[in-house]
Amino acid sequence: MVKKYIIAIDLGGTNLKLALCNSSFRIIAKSILSTRQFRSKESLIQAIVDAINSFLKSRKLSKRQILGVGMGLPGPIDTRRGLVHFFPNIPGWKEVFLKKILERKLGLRVFLDNDANLMSLAEFKLGAAKGSVNAICITLGTGVGGGIIIDGNLYRAEGFAAGEIGHVPINEVGPKCNCGGTACLERYIGNNRIKEFANKVFGREISLEEISSLAKKRNPKAVKIWQTVGTHLGVALVGQVNMLNPDCIVIGGGVANAGKILFDRVKQVILQRAMSIQAKRVKVCKAKLGYDAGIIGAAILVAESI
Amino acid sequence: MVKKYIIAIDLGGTNLKLALCNSSFRIIAKSILSTRQFRSKESLIQAIVDAINSFLKSRKLSKRQILGVGMGLPGPIDTRRGLVHFFPNIPGWKEVFLKKILERKLGLRVFLDNDANLMSLAEFKLGAAKGSVNAICITLGTGVGGGIIIDGNLYRAEGFAAGEIGHVPINEVGPKCNCGGTACLERYIGNNRIKEFANKVFGREISLEEISSLAKKRNPKAVKIWQTVGTHLGVALVGQVNMLNPDCIVIGGGVANAGKILFDRVKQVILQRAMSIQAKRVKVCKAKLGYDAGIIGAAILVAESI
Repeated sequence: MVKKYIIAIDLGGTNLKLALCNSSFRIIAKSILSTRQFRSKESLIQAIVDAINSFLKSRKLSKRQILGVGMGLPGPIDTRRGLVHFFPNIPGWKEVFLKKILERKLGLRVFLDNDANLMSLAEFKLGAAKGSVNAICITLGTGVGGGIIIDGNLYRAEGFAAGEIGHVPINEVGPKCNCGGTACLERYIGNNRIKEFANKVFGREISLEEISSLAKKRNPKAVKIWQTVGTHLGVALVGQVNMLNPDCIVIGGGVANAGKILFDRVKQVILQRAMSIQAKRVKVCKAKLGYDAGIIGAAILVAESI
Repeated sequence: MVKKYIIAIDLGGTNLKLALCNSSFRIIAKSILSTRQFRSKESLIQAIVDAINSFLKSRKLSKRQILGVGMGLPGPIDTRRGLVHFFPNIPGWKEVFLKKILERKLGLRVFLDNDANLMSLAEFKLGAAKGSVNAICITLGTGVGGGIIIDGNLYRAEGFAAGEIGHVPINEVGPKCNCGGTACLERYIGNNRIKEFANKVFGREISLEEISSLAKKRNPKAVKIWQTVGTHLGVALVGQVNMLNPDCIVIGGGVANAGKILFDRVKQVILQRAMSIQAKRVKVCKAKLGYDAGIIGAAILVAESI
């Protein structure tokens, strides 16, 4: 029998990651391009096509050996129709039938989903949420994204827009969010908001990495910052724990590297404020698949879709 | 063929409602007892058994004509094991295997669930959420309860405690809730909290019914009260709309009778503050089945379980 492969792509505002995976979702080859070098939608699409073709050529693979192409994308996606509604951080994309365009150019089957959904799918199938039935996965970055696993399946909803934990309000009155909402979680713990807060606390410019390393040495200012972030995140999660009664909450993305201080505070807030049955059930743990979660999720998407 | 019936029970802190339903969930006979007259768990269970037996006797029905007994209960229930964890408002119940006890006493199959779940099931199958795929149902009363429909099924979660919309925090800092949490929605819009607020606004004791009737006459104080309630509820729903991207939100219970002013404000808050894809999709509507929703849900539970 011919060995089969999957092409997995993770498009972010900064990087375009492409990987060739085997049918067990192991990454065999990977290439990374800078997203910003492509000024137009058309040039970005062509770069994806070229990268896939050069993958095939260099590995001497025929298209019949490729099960399909899976893509994680940084915005709302209609998975059923393969439609990109828009990207909040990449201009020029509005209601693009990307699946159809790529399938025509590539002669391969293509499947799209939101990047946070695919990270969640990967953590559920092969990572920190493995073995749970209902789970919430969160990525902490410039944006705060999420995905929901319900009864062992990724829950997308009919509008394909479920899982926006970053846009759960944690106060009735508060700062305006880019999404149009008010007092959204992301408005408190998106990377730039943490930096703003930290610059004030330290009275100078400070990076998230430095805050994490100072917090590990018990620097009181740094500890306070991660505890504050943990409280904001914890309050948003209390509502979701009481509503969805999940078995597991997985937290990934750069800020998750803040480590024990952040996780301890999140767990403490849930234990103190969520209802007892729900609080006792839920495990809060760090994402396992790290930087490659999106790519692995894109590969799983192909396997689940064909 | 012998005609089959279902016995449906809705136990509340105030009333115990029993009904005989046909297999299309139509109520044929109903009886109501006051819950408070039964001082012990044992006497309440015996009253249920007696009421069912007298139903059968007066209608000359044999037990073979009864498909089963469905029960909605005012607290957390392990549906799989037929176990009542406790009732927040009826003392003396702790980890009671009510299903087993009743099945032994009755010689009938018995199925239990939380009352808000059964109201949601009824509204989804026969009421305001009919035709939707994903829905959130809310009951506004002394407590604020809820149920979630996911992919056309009642979502209970592995801990059977999903749907607690009343215990979603709407602020990080706020009043303590009976559940142990802080700033829970119920702490703002439970009946007693609305009354407290209204007494202050009017400077006298006023009932919810009077506020509703004054609001319909555009009394500014009464209008303000329902708008405030609508804002609190709307903020809690924004988070759930962004997370679950539901097709439909059904609002029932006494306070839902406040009418258009309340519903308009809830819709307005969702349109203003939720993300556009999610906000555009969701319909917000009043529960259709009213007072009997719990009973109808209990009957549906039996049909779905056997």
